[in-house]
Amino acid sequence: MTSDTATQQGSRSAHENAELVFLPLGGAGEIGMNLNLYGYGPDHDRKWIMVDLGVTFGNEATPGIDIIMADPQFIADNRENLVALILTHGHEDHIGAVPYLWPELECPLYATPFTASLVRRKLDEEGLNDVPLNVVPLGGVIDLDPFSVELISLTHSIPEPNALAIRTPAGTVLHSGDWKIDDEPLIGQTTDEKALKDLGDAGVLAIVCDSTNALSEGISGSEGDVRRNLVDLVRDMTGRVVITAFASNVARVATAAHAAAECDRHLVLMGRSMHRIVAAARENGYLSDFPNLVDERDAGFLPPDKVLYLCTGSQGEPRAALARIASGTHPHIVLEEGDAVIFSSRIIPGNEKSIFALQNELVAQGVQIHTEKDNDIHVSGHPCRDELTRMYQWVRPEISIPVHGELRHLQAHANLAKELQVPNVFVAPNGTLLRLAPGAPEVIDHVPTGRLYLDGDILLSSDDEPLKERRRVAYSGLISVVLVVDGEGRLAAEPAIEIVGVPSVPGEPLSVEIEEVIDQVFQRERYRKFHKGHSMEELVRRAVRQKAKELTGKKPTTVVRLVSLDR
Amino acid sequence: MTSDTATQQGSRSAHENAELVFLPLGGAGEIGMNLNLYGYGPDHDRKWIMVDLGVTFGNEATPGIDIIMADPQFIADNRENLVALILTHGHEDHIGAVPYLWPELECPLYATPFTASLVRRKLDEEGLNDVPLNVVPLGGVIDLDPFSVELISLTHSIPEPNALAIRTPAGTVLHSGDWKIDDEPLIGQTTDEKALKDLGDAGVLAIVCDSTNALSEGISGSEGDVRRNLVDLVRDMTGRVVITAFASNVARVATAAHAAAECDRHLVLMGRSMHRIVAAARENGYLSDFPNLVDERDAGFLPPDKVLYLCTGSQGEPRAALARIASGTHPHIVLEEGDAVIFSSRIIPGNEKSIFALQNELVAQGVQIHTEKDNDIHVSGHPCRDELTRMYQWVRPEISIPVHGELRHLQAHANLAKELQVPNVFVAPNGTLLRLAPGAPEVIDHVPTGRLYLDGDILLSSDDEPLKERRRVAYSGLISVVLVVDGEGRLAAEPAIEIVGVPSVPGEPLSVEIEEVIDQVFQRERYRKFHKGHSMEELVRRAVRQKAKELTGKKPTTVVRLVSLDR
Repeated sequence: MTSDTATQQGSRSAHENAELVFLPLGGAGEIGMNLNLYGYGPDHDRKWIMVDLGVTFGNEATPGIDIIMADPQFIADNRENLVALILTHGHEDHIGAVPYLWPELECPLYATPFTASLVRRKLDEEGLNDVPLNVVPLGGVIDLDPFSVELISLTHSIPEPNALAIRTPAGTVLHSGDWKIDDEPLIGQTTDEKALKDLGDAGVLAIVCDSTNALSEGISGSEGDVRRNLVDLVRDMTGRVVITAFASNVARVATAAHAAAECDRHLVLMGRSMHRIVAAARENGYLSDFPNLVDERDAGFLPPDKVLYLCTGSQGEPRAALARIASGTHPHIVLEEGDAVIFSSRIIPGNEKSIFALQNELVAQGVQIHTEKDNDIHVSGHPCRDELTRMYQWVRPEISIPVHGELRHLQAHANLAKELQVPNVFVAPNGTLLRLAPGAPEVIDHVPTGRLYLDGDILLSSDDEPLKERRRVAYSGLISVVLVVDGEGRLAAEPAIEIVGVPSVPGEPLSVEIEEVIDQVFQRERYRKFHKGHSMEELVRRAVRQKAKELTGKKPTTVVRLVSLDR
Repeated sequence: MTSDTATQQGSRSAHENAELVFLPLGGAGEIGMNLNLYGYGPDHDRKWIMVDLGVTFGNEATPGIDIIMADPQFIADNRENLVALILTHGHEDHIGAVPYLWPELECPLYATPFTASLVRRKLDEEGLNDVPLNVVPLGGVIDLDPFSVELISLTHSIPEPNALAIRTPAGTVLHSGDWKIDDEPLIGQTTDEKALKDLGDAGVLAIVCDSTNALSEGISGSEGDVRRNLVDLVRDMTGRVVITAFASNVARVATAAHAAAECDRHLVLMGRSMHRIVAAARENGYLSDFPNLVDERDAGFLPPDKVLYLCTGSQGEPRAALARIASGTHPHIVLEEGDAVIFSSRIIPGNEKSIFALQNELVAQGVQIHTEKDNDIHVSGHPCRDELTRMYQWVRPEISIPVHGELRHLQAHANLAKELQVPNVFVAPNGTLLRLAPGAPEVIDHVPTGRLYLDGDILLSSDDEPLKERRRVAYSGLISVVLVVDGEGRLAAEPAIEIVGVPSVPGEPLSVEIEEVIDQVFQRERYRKFHKGHSMEELVRRAVRQKAKELTGKKPTTVVRLVSLDR
């Protein structure tokens, strides 16, 4: 057998055993931190492409943690077979983890121009200057043997949202990315319905599709209507107007500028991310008729009815512009009775308390609040059930795989897909390795998944001790005792007792009681045998913890360390 | 001047200077922990009645704290003039703080029978057996010189909600308590519209009124409709049915029993508070036709279509029955594909994440979820704007004081009252001392207010250190160092280093680096002068913290203690 023949045989057998698989590691069964993998080839030599690499944000349940991402361990271990990371669009839950995880992947990146601008800024901030970031035009095709990936323009709440038509020898998968149907998106083209229909006509094996609004009836609504309603709302106002919105929604930014112009007001941009997004948008040819801005330091000199602020902080983020305005600590903007704040945004679940607290602060200043509850001044960027239905009618896939949502969303989406008579529907949470072809689609494996927490500068696994320890201390406090003993095991100094976060009755310091308990243990144990002080530490620990519980009703984390002078 | 004349003059002058005042200490400008005070008399000798004494619940922002209440300091300092505590109804945000704060007040309690049953259970649990708890009939009058308080029955999401008509020589105040208008409340009478109209005809100086739904248009809806919709929903079901609702909503409990009977299912009650409420209701003559219950231990033997579970835990409370069912850890109930869980409840803001996590667990078991989002199976117990409007039309007060809500609710309520042409409207957050009569109503003082946290068994002020310390450690971790030094100030043993919740790179233990830093400080400082080790502790503390920041990006709480062998 010549080596050529061997290669041919190897190639044929590779082809014979080749499978097309899908594997979500993040975003399927949870909100945010999207990470999807497509594989093609035989099990032992499979090529992979990764779609998106996002983050989610920490909250009070993860104190000290701002950023959370999916653990890429599986693909990091196979990175020699990772052909590309394709970023569908520029939202944080799709690109936010790139600067933290790219060093473990070292693969080429692909993105359309606006997304690439945002990613490049992120990489620069982290000092990652040598990442191969390939800019793909809208509607472009990326050749990534054995994959060929065509970008299809959709609409969403950020410019340049792309669906991916991933073609392989075993069939075509449509990865929807985040999308909606909007006939008047204001920025960019409308949803490329023709491309989707053509794809459907040619035959789609599987769709991997956005489930965010699968529990919501009807349609998500249009940016065009939001614009008309916002202009109407601002037109009636006589005081200062503040509009808060997600910075990345460039159409909404354009709408704020439009409302300012229509109502004879000067536009003022507030917040770093607002300026960053506007710069990235203009770099890429959007917002070409954006008005001249008034600097926030000068805006205070304008009459109240001549100014419109557009600012970040609609989710109550404590460091954002709006939070500082609401708390009266902003250096340049003071609001007063007769002014209005318009929340052109939704409440992201989990942020209710922060947002309401912010609104209460504004109300305390006499400011009028307007939200989407009372006015149609916000639309979602994700497809509601009628939009999902249209997508399925266009594409007519053999297989439906809902992603991008909690399990309850995926399940609702799956039920809808079944109603629409999709032959195979899979709720495949993170870690599910699904064979799409050849043969009947089937779950063939489960891959370990997890979350990584950015804790300070260090990436922790969610199982690691530091966060658990912090949470324990946060609930019950901590008592740390250091005992200095001499060669005979007797206390050679007063115990050093550190009490952190344990309540006590005024005038009854806990440390005094704890010292007594320690003395008692030493008294009681003096005639017993113990070696190297080991059991003594545990005896003291238990006695101290028991005493604390008795006096406070809490069970603090208690650590006891023995320092021996016998050395 | 005889002493009689003096008394007469004193009495007359007391009468001349007598003022009627209102002072909220809790619940005005925040959710929960209601505490309202009414005072009558001259400033130096004013008699007080307190209306309600509730709690709110801690969350992840207050780790280790389950229960929070308003600080009653002002009235505790004046308790010899506190005539009574009147409890309008039995919800936790109106009665929950009684067992914790009554010892600081020692005043008589007044409540209607059902509320009294709930309060008595609470007092018994805390071993408070000698609290004077007076049971007042519905519609009764309590004579509390100089006040006369008439109870007026309203409707709400618990039996026996009472408004209070507080009559004083200076005029009548209507304290609404929590209420709504429901023509079909199922339990208890409908709103006593006639009593309210009569009161309005006789003249009402001020109304102090529920603002919870002041941002919601229309009406809150009826328990009667909820019953019909729930029966319709359950009738179509073929698997096990679980309804989760607030236990205290006895009408809803009765509806679940009714739905079980209508659909030929056996009712199973789950959760301690569910059993407790049913017992209290039956004690007071409610639920007299309640069906025989099947014990939860036996229910598993019934066919799935013959059982209806009613259980606690609609807010995702981790220890409640539903959470244990959802996580598959309940000893008696297992759900499966084809079963349904009906959330006959709303989402209390702040609980979104817990509730959605619970729903995701249920979905993972193949269980179908039904919520108020898709079905009209819940109504609020508080008045929406049309109900508020009717109340104002009935009562026609001189003064409106919105309470029971965040500032944004109070403000919306105040704006509505102004539209309804109430002559005087006051948004008076906690601590505002408002003179209602004589003369034009006016804010005359601000009284210090605060929150008390039940931390273990100890009541902390929110300013106290323990919770702050725990929060700091929760964010950044802690390093505790104990240095044992000899008479010359030299290290007499290895430093004892305790690191809690600080991340580190695997294989690079922080303690080694910290030990090195400590050695460096001692090396550097050996020829310098320092006394009693004081400055040495601070020098080491700074160096250790700096090192930790450099290695981890975090700034842990760092404490250094020096133990001297020189004694």
